[in-house]
Amino acid sequence: MNFLEERIIRDGEVRPGQVLKVDGFLNHQMDVALLEEIGREFKRRFGHKRITKVLTIEASGIGIACFAAREFGVPMVFAKKSKSLNVGSDVYMAEVESFTHGNRNQVIVSRKYLSGEDRLLIIDDFLANGSALQGLIAIAEAAGASVEGLGIVIEKGFQPGGKLIRERGFDLQSLAIVDAMDEETGEITFRRQE
Amino acid sequence: MNFLEERIIRDGEVRPGQVLKVDGFLNHQMDVALLEEIGREFKRRFGHKRITKVLTIEASGIGIACFAAREFGVPMVFAKKSKSLNVGSDVYMAEVESFTHGNRNQVIVSRKYLSGEDRLLIIDDFLANGSALQGLIAIAEAAGASVEGLGIVIEKGFQPGGKLIRERGFDLQSLAIVDAMDEETGEITFRRQE
Repeated sequence: MNFLEERIIRDGEVRPGQVLKVDGFLNHQMDVALLEEIGREFKRRFGHKRITKVLTIEASGIGIACFAAREFGVPMVFAKKSKSLNVGSDVYMAEVESFTHGNRNQVIVSRKYLSGEDRLLIIDDFLANGSALQGLIAIAEAAGASVEGLGIVIEKGFQPGGKLIRERGFDLQSLAIVDAMDEETGEITFRRQE
Repeated sequence: MNFLEERIIRDGEVRPGQVLKVDGFLNHQMDVALLEEIGREFKRRFGHKRITKVLTIEASGIGIACFAAREFGVPMVFAKKSKSLNVGSDVYMAEVESFTHGNRNQVIVSRKYLSGEDRLLIIDDFLANGSALQGLIAIAEAAGASVEGLGIVIEKGFQPGGKLIRERGFDLQSLAIVDAMDEETGEITFRRQE
């Protein structure tokens, strides 16, 4: 097991409805030393690629993406949910469905901050159905930017998002892939990865 | 001028309606080296206090709060807007008005992550009317936690939030206080601070 899988076993909680709660260290209370280690791990996995920007989506992706961007020495851009009065009309937009919140959001990125010159590392905390990632990929494509890699902290391997995105040919890497969770015993089964 | 004021002069934009756009480096695209420097500056200002947690509010506070928390070696907790299906009912709640978005949100923090033992540094990117900060203070008070300090990146000194919070006796420090913005010339006047 890697450092993240060990932490999930120690502090994660399996809840009814195939929910994995990691809000004690990843997406409500954040262990910033862990986030820093996650950033270093993404650098180890994608460091051979030339990356010009890290792209993520608010809110819980932001912390991880900050530490990844710091490792690469590049700016981080986060897609914003819903339309802010302060964001101009000159934006890339995608529609994203939230499994967690049970709703749909438009997410936007200002055209000023993505261009055809950009080589992106897309980062997010969770991957389940893949709607957020597909939205970020659509935004990257609309900007003409290349998606060099996608780095996920926790993938739910029993949901279709990861498979769909890998089948499109993207270099998607998840630090932990949960293949099964037992709601009775709390047992979590990770996919074996190199 | 300090490093932040210099950056605001260089890359900030004054827009109609007393809007200061800093989304090229602070709250949409993020210059993580700048965020790190902001984190170090908060450590310099509040480092004499014992802090057990950094508290902020999603979304644009998260990056700054991460780097501040890293300097202090403590966890970061961010208040979530609206009720997620994944957050239990056992939460502290406050109502917050967004000047930027023109709406009201309930913000919540799980009771698990704040306690009467906590000594908090509250962090946010912007302070204008102070609604978000007052909400975070209310949540801290509901938890019985002490608010040791509040660190803001940019305060709009011509709006009442900062004055109201300082009058309540809190140690509120803003790295840049904008006392006036000229929409015609784009000129920004900062308050002189020690």
